[in-house]
Amino acid sequence: MTPDEGIYLGVDIGGTKVLAAEVGADGQVVATARRTTPGRRVEVALVEDALTEAVQEVAAGRPIAGVGLAAAGFVDASGERVMFAPHLPWRGDPTRSRLADRWDTTVVLDNDANCAVRAEGVYGVARGAEDIVMVTLGTGIGGAVVVGGRIHRGRNGMAGEFGHMQVLPDGAPCECGGFGCWEQYCSGNALVRFVRTRLGRVPTVLEQWCEGDGERLTGPMVTTAAEHDDPVALQAFESVGDWLGVGLANLVAALDPEVVVIGGGVSAAGDLLLEPARSALVRSLVGAGHRQVPPVHPARFGPHAGVVGAAHLARSTS
Amino acid sequence: MTPDEGIYLGVDIGGTKVLAAEVGADGQVVATARRTTPGRRVEVALVEDALTEAVQEVAAGRPIAGVGLAAAGFVDASGERVMFAPHLPWRGDPTRSRLADRWDTTVVLDNDANCAVRAEGVYGVARGAEDIVMVTLGTGIGGAVVVGGRIHRGRNGMAGEFGHMQVLPDGAPCECGGFGCWEQYCSGNALVRFVRTRLGRVPTVLEQWCEGDGERLTGPMVTTAAEHDDPVALQAFESVGDWLGVGLANLVAALDPEVVVIGGGVSAAGDLLLEPARSALVRSLVGAGHRQVPPVHPARFGPHAGVVGAAHLARSTS
Repeated sequence: MTPDEGIYLGVDIGGTKVLAAEVGADGQVVATARRTTPGRRVEVALVEDALTEAVQEVAAGRPIAGVGLAAAGFVDASGERVMFAPHLPWRGDPTRSRLADRWDTTVVLDNDANCAVRAEGVYGVARGAEDIVMVTLGTGIGGAVVVGGRIHRGRNGMAGEFGHMQVLPDGAPCECGGFGCWEQYCSGNALVRFVRTRLGRVPTVLEQWCEGDGERLTGPMVTTAAEHDDPVALQAFESVGDWLGVGLANLVAALDPEVVVIGGGVSAAGDLLLEPARSALVRSLVGAGHRQVPPVHPARFGPHAGVVGAAHLARSTS
Repeated sequence: MTPDEGIYLGVDIGGTKVLAAEVGADGQVVATARRTTPGRRVEVALVEDALTEAVQEVAAGRPIAGVGLAAAGFVDASGERVMFAPHLPWRGDPTRSRLADRWDTTVVLDNDANCAVRAEGVYGVARGAEDIVMVTLGTGIGGAVVVGGRIHRGRNGMAGEFGHMQVLPDGAPCECGGFGCWEQYCSGNALVRFVRTRLGRVPTVLEQWCEGDGERLTGPMVTTAAEHDDPVALQAFESVGDWLGVGLANLVAALDPEVVVIGGGVSAAGDLLLEPARSALVRSLVGAGHRQVPPVHPARFGPHAGVVGAAHLARSTS
């Protein structure tokens, strides 16, 4: 199919927002549209309406050759259904086929982190690597494992769910039903929670930015404040970055990858996040002095990795 | 090479003992010899002398076609050296070639858990599985990962070092230099430590068995006491089994295997260990109600899995 016969879109469905993008054959993001994710306790149809609006806005009436969906949840091994998603309402619905019918085009579905690692492995910072660990930090944590150049999916298609590895016994309760999951300490939510517990106790510019209402705080606000040297925001990144490195050390001990890639919205903070993570990785990794410790790279496509990989998947499938 | 031209041996080098075995083509253990491991602070030559004695005892003057070494440590990707082993003195020595010269036969070297998973995948409880997680509980924890039917080694050959994944921040100090490593809570050492801290405080038959001296306690003593319903020994297995399941939940979240296999000396306790582990796995695993939770099998070859796999490796290589 030539570009004249339609555009390819990637759609990243996260816990807080939907991002749709037209993506070129070279991985270039050409146009985007955003919607707020309706939340996990609403009707599935509301989420699918939001996706449809975002896709239509990007397409702007042009023919669509294929859409790749990157979902923040467990996608079955055949790529038909979102089986379970802590931040989304799908529970085994036939999402792929329903949206293919609704949009009258080819639709493919994969986990968001699998899409992100595809983007980085094909076009980005992990190009050529055979063994990759990818961690995406958004509302929660997504993850993907590449072994021998192939995305490892596992029996249920659920490999790479790093966010719900327990890092603290009897720790903070998690939306998944567990306690002390990694994403409670290392995610956009964790960043916001760190600041929220300090509002009114420690001086921070974020106090004004959210008008004293912690509920209005967002991850991007914390990133911007840290970039302006706000001490509480900097501490939040120190904490989240340290937990990132501790968790990475566990994954590197288990998988010994060539390269680690950090994506998702929080990765936009760059070295504010990655420097403490690299320190903690070396500190925590078994036998660090007797091995090559993998580099920890920010995703080239940053928060666009999911849509770029999803569009590549659609392009490869059509 | 026909059997007449020599026997194949597997040698398992753990933190407390060396086990050498003649292994038949069907995986059958024909004869064994044991030595105490000299320890990690001694000369490397002492460990290699112990291996030589055990090999010579099993061979009893017969020609040797090949020896497979299963070492409880990090083996480099080319199978030449033990790069680092928390419980053994090797630090990058050319172990394979040195022992091949000394014994004048083919010698192959791999990590003990990689050997164990080979035994179980070829002859045992994981036969035919493409994606396997194997955890061996001995002095410490060993681990192996099979993805797509192949042992995953990683960049440094160090994949599968599950024992040093941190499960408790600022937890018990570990021989690896870290704190709160999984094997501090889930291993033969952990079993013994659990009982040791209760001697003289809680009635237990182990008090007499070790004559009140906790240093004399061993893992097999705790297993025997538990089999005789000693309450402290049973509690020790509840604790170690629970930690086993919690750690397995982390590995299953990351890797989503078809089957989990538990080997090593501690696995001889069977359901005393595995029942609490299975409960904790289901309790701790993200999305357990929305996925097929992998079965947790005891290794068919139990404490012999390492030697059987090592001998198979030697047989495949010769």
